[in-house]
Amino acid sequence: MIVNGTPHRTVWIEGSTVRMINQPLIPHRFEIVDLPDHRATAEAIRTMVVRGAGAIGATAGYAMAQVVLEAPDNGDFASYVESGAETVRKTRPTAQNLFYAVDRVMRAAMGTESVVAARRASIETAQAIADEDAASCEAIGRHGAHLIKDGMKVLTHCNAGWLAFVDWGSALAPVYAAKRQGRKAFVFADETRPRCQGARLTAWELNNEGIDHAIIVDNASGYLMRLGRVDMIIVGSDRIASNGDVVNKIGTYEKAVVARELGLPFYVAAPTSTIDPDTPSGDDVPIEERSEDEVLYMHGRLDDGEYGRVRIAPQGCRALNLAFDVTPAKYIRGIITQHGILEPAEIMKALDQGA
Amino acid sequence: MIVNGTPHRTVWIEGSTVRMINQPLIPHRFEIVDLPDHRATAEAIRTMVVRGAGAIGATAGYAMAQVVLEAPDNGDFASYVESGAETVRKTRPTAQNLFYAVDRVMRAAMGTESVVAARRASIETAQAIADEDAASCEAIGRHGAHLIKDGMKVLTHCNAGWLAFVDWGSALAPVYAAKRQGRKAFVFADETRPRCQGARLTAWELNNEGIDHAIIVDNASGYLMRLGRVDMIIVGSDRIASNGDVVNKIGTYEKAVVARELGLPFYVAAPTSTIDPDTPSGDDVPIEERSEDEVLYMHGRLDDGEYGRVRIAPQGCRALNLAFDVTPAKYIRGIITQHGILEPAEIMKALDQGA
Repeated sequence: MIVNGTPHRTVWIEGSTVRMINQPLIPHRFEIVDLPDHRATAEAIRTMVVRGAGAIGATAGYAMAQVVLEAPDNGDFASYVESGAETVRKTRPTAQNLFYAVDRVMRAAMGTESVVAARRASIETAQAIADEDAASCEAIGRHGAHLIKDGMKVLTHCNAGWLAFVDWGSALAPVYAAKRQGRKAFVFADETRPRCQGARLTAWELNNEGIDHAIIVDNASGYLMRLGRVDMIIVGSDRIASNGDVVNKIGTYEKAVVARELGLPFYVAAPTSTIDPDTPSGDDVPIEERSEDEVLYMHGRLDDGEYGRVRIAPQGCRALNLAFDVTPAKYIRGIITQHGILEPAEIMKALDQGA
Repeated sequence: MIVNGTPHRTVWIEGSTVRMINQPLIPHRFEIVDLPDHRATAEAIRTMVVRGAGAIGATAGYAMAQVVLEAPDNGDFASYVESGAETVRKTRPTAQNLFYAVDRVMRAAMGTESVVAARRASIETAQAIADEDAASCEAIGRHGAHLIKDGMKVLTHCNAGWLAFVDWGSALAPVYAAKRQGRKAFVFADETRPRCQGARLTAWELNNEGIDHAIIVDNASGYLMRLGRVDMIIVGSDRIASNGDVVNKIGTYEKAVVARELGLPFYVAAPTSTIDPDTPSGDDVPIEERSEDEVLYMHGRLDDGEYGRVRIAPQGCRALNLAFDVTPAKYIRGIITQHGILEPAEIMKALDQGA
């Protein structure tokens, strides 16, 4: 996508350096971070310099390529790669794309007969993961655009736009594609506490793309649905279980329950790399519990223009911060993949169609 | 309730000066504001120096007493009172307690035969409204405490504790009463964006009362219900229609829908002054739309200890800020009033029992 007139991806590799958009600074500053080795890249995933299912996956692939590039050309090669993979895997527990990318680069590197070939294979595979992510999201946009009629009002939760992937995004891709076909949607962006990826990232993307929108507090989406002011809901996903249950940003479950109560179509958009064939149901997915401070504080731009934070809650109070929730398949009208729109119960068919 | 060892109400009158706790500063500072005339008091309601159904009602009653005290002792008396009432009524559109209090003080003042008698009646009536609010909330606590078993986990939304009333509160009163009877509840406090009355006020109250709790983002409450970590939901109300529909802080509707989906008991606690017999259904209640800035910014304590704000969203983005929503009666297990717990459809019976 275009930022300040220049095409950008969220993450890419130059030589052995991973470069990415520093997402916590958006919308207040646009900066690129350089990550010289796999430990720096893993730390960027852990601290959410990069976030979003596909972007985490692509970054994890690049981090694994860095591991293979760094690994010593001797008997310690395999153990260095194993240990590096473990470092990358431990950064975030929920996003399926992360494990998918680590395993795929590992397999490619280990399937070669020399360290030189392993290094080339790891870079090529990491690059392929990133390119496929961008292509899949473009295809998701193409399939999903059919759902969007001119003037429709679409609600989305969190950020599953291009910043959450390598390019295009999942939940927002249909909106971007429809716009290029001449049909405009209005987007309600849930601000998505605690980290406000909706207010910060989704709103920034929509603003850049010239798409009419309103930021709302997460509390308002159900009522706007009830008022008839929302025609459709599209969200992304961090992991899809083989029964079609969807793990996504905390709050998704509530929106889905209200949507079904009101008969509104609730769609999930995700590339097949988000599907976890080894997990039978959403309740088997580990849900990340993050720092209390994400709830107790809010970050943003201070009145003097600097970046800072305010503490909302009293000293001494405790918070609980679950990052994701599980939306059972029955609440989901369809899952928009790069191979088309499937019913949740049929999601495993998308894997057969792919790769 | 006790603050720093001293008993406090949220609002009271001394001579012709209305005094109140400055609620936007809580939890970071505890200050009392002096309001010398009805215009200052009305402005304090409008800008939410005082908020919460019962506290708004009591303040509106005191503001009307100020109007009657200020009104000239001549032929302009009635028109001054009418115009002052209009000023107070226009401060907030949704809270029923406000209109109830204005009308009741007006009636008391206009039913007298001299200006001196009108002044005395207006002060006495305003004081009675405040005292009844405190007594009603104490009775709500007594009735509601029966619902609370030791170790129960209660979810609440926004602040319907004592800061939202003159004393005791509505939704939290049963928790406070149960504690005095030796049964402890754990409270999940929705932070309640945009103004975070849950994270700021409810958490502050619970901390003062020594009640175990966790602040959660509004997105998390539905999922915690689904995980079986919530036993009961109790919220307050800003207006109850005669069919039992409940108007309350934005987000209440979503929580109620999820609670019913999961078969969890969802209670509303409110004194009968919150019932609006002239409104047939919740959808007839005007819903206040407030400034976009409440969504785009977050206020709190800066790292240097000062009070300030951060901007969350990009410049140029728009927000929509509906302050309340409507929860249809069918989602509500019971309404806890000072006269006992009623089914929503029977709520008009509470009015027969009162006054």
